[in-house]
Amino acid sequence: MKYVRFKQGKTDKYGVLKDEEIIVLTGSPLNVDTAQTDEKVNIEEVRLISPLIPNEIIGIGANFIADEKDRPEWLPNTPIFFSKPKHSVIGTEDSIELPPGIESVKFESEIAVIIGKQARNIDESDYLDYIFGITVANDVTSPDYFREDGHWFVGKSFPSFTPLGPVIETEFELENVMIQSYVNGEPFQNSPTSHMIISISQMISYLSQVTVLNPGDVILTGSPVGAGFVKAGDVVSCTVTGIGTLENPVIQSKTTKKATLI
Amino acid sequence: MKYVRFKQGKTDKYGVLKDEEIIVLTGSPLNVDTAQTDEKVNIEEVRLISPLIPNEIIGIGANFIADEKDRPEWLPNTPIFFSKPKHSVIGTEDSIELPPGIESVKFESEIAVIIGKQARNIDESDYLDYIFGITVANDVTSPDYFREDGHWFVGKSFPSFTPLGPVIETEFELENVMIQSYVNGEPFQNSPTSHMIISISQMISYLSQVTVLNPGDVILTGSPVGAGFVKAGDVVSCTVTGIGTLENPVIQSKTTKKATLI
Repeated sequence: MKYVRFKQGKTDKYGVLKDEEIIVLTGSPLNVDTAQTDEKVNIEEVRLISPLIPNEIIGIGANFIADEKDRPEWLPNTPIFFSKPKHSVIGTEDSIELPPGIESVKFESEIAVIIGKQARNIDESDYLDYIFGITVANDVTSPDYFREDGHWFVGKSFPSFTPLGPVIETEFELENVMIQSYVNGEPFQNSPTSHMIISISQMISYLSQVTVLNPGDVILTGSPVGAGFVKAGDVVSCTVTGIGTLENPVIQSKTTKKATLI
Repeated sequence: MKYVRFKQGKTDKYGVLKDEEIIVLTGSPLNVDTAQTDEKVNIEEVRLISPLIPNEIIGIGANFIADEKDRPEWLPNTPIFFSKPKHSVIGTEDSIELPPGIESVKFESEIAVIIGKQARNIDESDYLDYIFGITVANDVTSPDYFREDGHWFVGKSFPSFTPLGPVIETEFELENVMIQSYVNGEPFQNSPTSHMIISISQMISYLSQVTVLNPGDVILTGSPVGAGFVKAGDVVSCTVTGIGTLENPVIQSKTTKKATLI
C-alpha cells in the first residue's frame, strides 16, 4: 500500500493512494484504529505534504562505499548515529530554505525506514516485523554549522532540512534498490543498497539495543557517495527505485541575519 | 505554580502541587485548554513520574567554567548542541539502568528549561516569554559509547538516561540558583548559573535561529564541573535550589548481552 498525507483546504489528512485516487483515512495509518472512509479525492486536486510527522528522526553517517573493493574489514564499535528535530521535516515540492548568510547546502538522498512497532533488543533476523514502510528522504545539511570536533546537530536542524516523501510504501524490498539524486535533472548519486556498510537490518537491531525504537520513528539509513551542494534556484530530486521521487526547489532565506550567540 | 505528573492506578495524570495536595488537571498544563478539576489527591498516595513527555530534548555540552578566571575570551562559532530521544526520560525515584556490560555511567545535574511557546528567530531579551517553566534534569551518559570523533548520540540514548523532575516550577528565577549533585549523600557538583559560558537567554535565542523551538521542548542547559560516575547500588541526587531534588537509584541491566552490530 502507498500511504500519503495531504492538505485539503486547511486540514491535513491521511490517505491510501491507488493510481490517481486517494482513499481518505480516519487518521494516521500508524494508529491501530485507523480505517478507510468513503471519501475519495484525485491526487491532482490536493497538495501532498510529508507522509508522516515523525516521532524521532535518527540518521546514520558515513554508511556507503563507492565500490565493493573499498568495503572496510571491520564494522565500527560505535557507528555514527545522530538525530534531527522533527520540525525540520517538509514534503515533496516544498522549498528547502537556505539558512541566512549561507549560499549552498549539501543534499543526501536516502531510504527512510518508518518503524511500525516498538523495538527493544530485537534480533537482526526479525527486523522486517518492525518496519511499517519506507519512503525517500533528503538529509539536508549546512556543513558551515558543523563543529570540527564532530557535533552535527546544529548543521542538520534548520527548518526544511528533512524533506520526506512522496509516499510511504509498505510493499517494498530492500535488496535490489538504487538510491539516486539529481540537481536540475543532472545525475549525482546512484548506488545500490548493497553498498551500505551497516545494513538496514543491522542498524535496526543495534538501535533497538542502545535505545527503544517506537512507531513513527524515522531512520535515515545513509546516503551514497556523490552527494553535492545546491544553491538558491536549484531543484534537487531524490529517488529510491520502486518507491518514488522527492523533489524540492531551493530558495534564499527570508531573513538575512546569520545565527549568532550575541 | 508547581506542576507534576503522577500515576494513579494505571492512568497518568497531570496536577498542580500545593503543599502536600495535588489538584488534578484535565490534561497537560502545556495545552491551552487544560483546566483544574475538583479532584484532589495527597502526594503521599501517588507515584510521581516525569513532569512531562518532551517534544524534543536538546542539550548543550561543555557549558560551565569552574571559576570566573577560567571564562573563555570568545564564545564558540557553533556551540555543542546534541539531542536525546524522548524514550530516555524517567521520573524521580525511577531507576537508572546501566547498559549491558557497562559498570558505571556518568551523571550530570542540570537545569532543564521547558519551552511553552513556539520560538523562531527571537531576540535574547525576549527569552522569558518562551519559557513555560523549569525542572531538574540528570543528563546520564555512557562514555563507552561515545565516538572519538565526537558523536554522542548513542552514548546518551539508552532508556532511563534522562531523569526529569520532580516538578515543573513556573515561578522561578535563574540568576541566583545553584546546581548541585550528590552520590549516596556525598556532594559532587555545586555551581551557580553564573558559571555558565553560554547563558540560558543566549542558548534559547540561538536555538530559535538554527531550528524552531516548540511547546514541550526540553533544553538541558549544561552541567557544572565535578560530575562523576555511578555504579549499581548507588543513589544519585540532582538539585536545583528553589526547584527541587531529583533522586534516582542505579541498577544493573536486566540483560547481559552488550550492544553489537553483528
